[in-house]
Amino acid sequence: MMPSRFDGLERELAAADLGGIALNAGPSLTYFTGLDFHLMERPVVFIYVIGKMPVFILPRLEAAKVAEMGKIKIYFYDEDPKQWPKIFAEALAGSGAAGGTLGVEPLQLRVLEYTLLKQAVENIRLVDGSQVTASLRSTKDNAEIVLMQRAVDIAQDALRAVLPQIRLGMKEEEVAGELIVQLFRHGSDAVLPFSPIVSSGPNGANPHARPSQRKLCEGDLLVIDWGAGYRGYVSDLTRTFAVGEIDEESARIHDIVQQANSAGRAAGRIGVACSEVDRAAREVIEEAGYGQFFTHRTGHGIGMQCHEEPYMRAGNDRILRGGMTYTVEPGIYLSGKNGVRIEDDVLITAEGAVSLSTLPRRITRVG
Amino acid sequence: MMPSRFDGLERELAAADLGGIALNAGPSLTYFTGLDFHLMERPVVFIYVIGKMPVFILPRLEAAKVAEMGKIKIYFYDEDPKQWPKIFAEALAGSGAAGGTLGVEPLQLRVLEYTLLKQAVENIRLVDGSQVTASLRSTKDNAEIVLMQRAVDIAQDALRAVLPQIRLGMKEEEVAGELIVQLFRHGSDAVLPFSPIVSSGPNGANPHARPSQRKLCEGDLLVIDWGAGYRGYVSDLTRTFAVGEIDEESARIHDIVQQANSAGRAAGRIGVACSEVDRAAREVIEEAGYGQFFTHRTGHGIGMQCHEEPYMRAGNDRILRGGMTYTVEPGIYLSGKNGVRIEDDVLITAEGAVSLSTLPRRITRVG
Repeated sequence: MMPSRFDGLERELAAADLGGIALNAGPSLTYFTGLDFHLMERPVVFIYVIGKMPVFILPRLEAAKVAEMGKIKIYFYDEDPKQWPKIFAEALAGSGAAGGTLGVEPLQLRVLEYTLLKQAVENIRLVDGSQVTASLRSTKDNAEIVLMQRAVDIAQDALRAVLPQIRLGMKEEEVAGELIVQLFRHGSDAVLPFSPIVSSGPNGANPHARPSQRKLCEGDLLVIDWGAGYRGYVSDLTRTFAVGEIDEESARIHDIVQQANSAGRAAGRIGVACSEVDRAAREVIEEAGYGQFFTHRTGHGIGMQCHEEPYMRAGNDRILRGGMTYTVEPGIYLSGKNGVRIEDDVLITAEGAVSLSTLPRRITRVG
Repeated sequence: MMPSRFDGLERELAAADLGGIALNAGPSLTYFTGLDFHLMERPVVFIYVIGKMPVFILPRLEAAKVAEMGKIKIYFYDEDPKQWPKIFAEALAGSGAAGGTLGVEPLQLRVLEYTLLKQAVENIRLVDGSQVTASLRSTKDNAEIVLMQRAVDIAQDALRAVLPQIRLGMKEEEVAGELIVQLFRHGSDAVLPFSPIVSSGPNGANPHARPSQRKLCEGDLLVIDWGAGYRGYVSDLTRTFAVGEIDEESARIHDIVQQANSAGRAAGRIGVACSEVDRAAREVIEEAGYGQFFTHRTGHGIGMQCHEEPYMRAGNDRILRGGMTYTVEPGIYLSGKNGVRIEDDVLITAEGAVSLSTLPRRITRVG
């Protein structure tokens, strides 16, 4: 359990006019309990009601994991799913949630747990409580920042180990494979935040391309988008390289994206709206005449999840606060030709947005 | 798109009295569309209504991924979540689902997509359609079996590369780290099905232990539970090793679990209930007097997901059919002392359950 985080939880629940919160297996549950459960076929739910002892519903085979949890009511079930409704009813009764309103996370809670919670007690309302957890989790404390910096460092060190191995004629898949091995050699968590993207030439025009059998050719732009995990916190970086000699337009769009990345990073500071970060990066690309080819938002919050609040997009008037961490990742995608993206992970401090990632952003030649 | 799978889908939908199905990002969506989407903050939903053209709702930045999908109606939205309700309403109208009943997967569908679907059209019922997808996905075709065998082979080859490196005094974490590297060296998908478990001595008594800093000691039992992914299909294996010389009880419980694994594998054949597989393995352990220390079901289905139907547990009267793949993984867990688990991935054929995994099950000495 992370008791220091319950003060913040009570404050945010009160501000959101919620009596408590119900969390299933996922990062928010881990954030408050310190325990990590996979989101699998067995429901794991943590219920926190203001002023009551927290409640944990989980399979008996996880008993060892919660043996030293202290002040908490634990409701175990055995291997038969038919036990679930009864256990949920007992747990909800024990939680003190009856008659009140519990926040849930629509992006994390499944119909499975939602239905079990709804049916467990008649007079309970389940409403969107995302902002409670997002508000707390989006503002990282010092211990979290140390883990995030480590996740960035592992990713950077892994890429540095791969770059000298890249050769003309190497397949995208081979580059990705070597990068994955190096991520683990450098200490990444076992489960990567996402499968690295290695996309060359025309494949780079798809922001979410999968590494293919395509071989690196002279003149390609090569997009590498990768990240590491460290004790549950993740990094997410992108750099774009020149395979041999690139043509003028490729060099130009790389230069524009680099300027957009720089402008996006510079725009972040306490008190500024997320939409401003997006606008700062987007304006550079629009003014260079490539606005229609920057097809996604400028960035996303990052922490325990690779994508979390706050999102750097037009229309998002959320205000940046100290301790927030997010990506700045403008791109230009020219269908059938190539693509460029440059992505950093930044942290909002009293001095503005500081980049946790430090790999050179200028175009670098490989192969 | 995987058109060959839509015949089965129509048949199962009709059998379940459903007009169609709505799937969000996850393995079932991939099973039918051939496309893989991460379950993230942007909803991705595929709707199939019998006799209508399928519908896909997804973010515009995924356009390149679906460019060649053929006969399907695609509804894109941009970066502002405020567009979601409108796009869902248009897509549901275009799907022909209005007035009907759609199946959903409670284990996969989130409150996010559930709410968007419910609010998109007034007269629609969303009900548990898990059995439709489970029925199809649990029976693997030949192409799937080839991928599963490859996922098993990669896992086995990786472990074989690690075993000679294990030494007395090595930390569990170090063994796990080396195993992860070898999984990728041998060709595993970038995202592992789960983080390998390496638990020694008393840590082995927790079936879901995380690798710790504990150093391997003479006399430890060492449980290694690991798996690989190959093109979206996964393996999940466990072997238990002797670190140096082990005592008599450790040897005895290993022997009992090995017999239970053998009995569990032998019990699987077409027409037998899943509960019978569980009973066959459990009886061996109960008769040896350790029944209370075998604290979980005997196995779970495996395929695109590490845990999926069918589940080998008491009370599950589901009948085994040809092409089903599942784990057989009995264990004995002695709190404060040690643990044993031996896990294979088996395939139901006309000749009974055939193990895809072939690593020796007898106790082997390491260190």
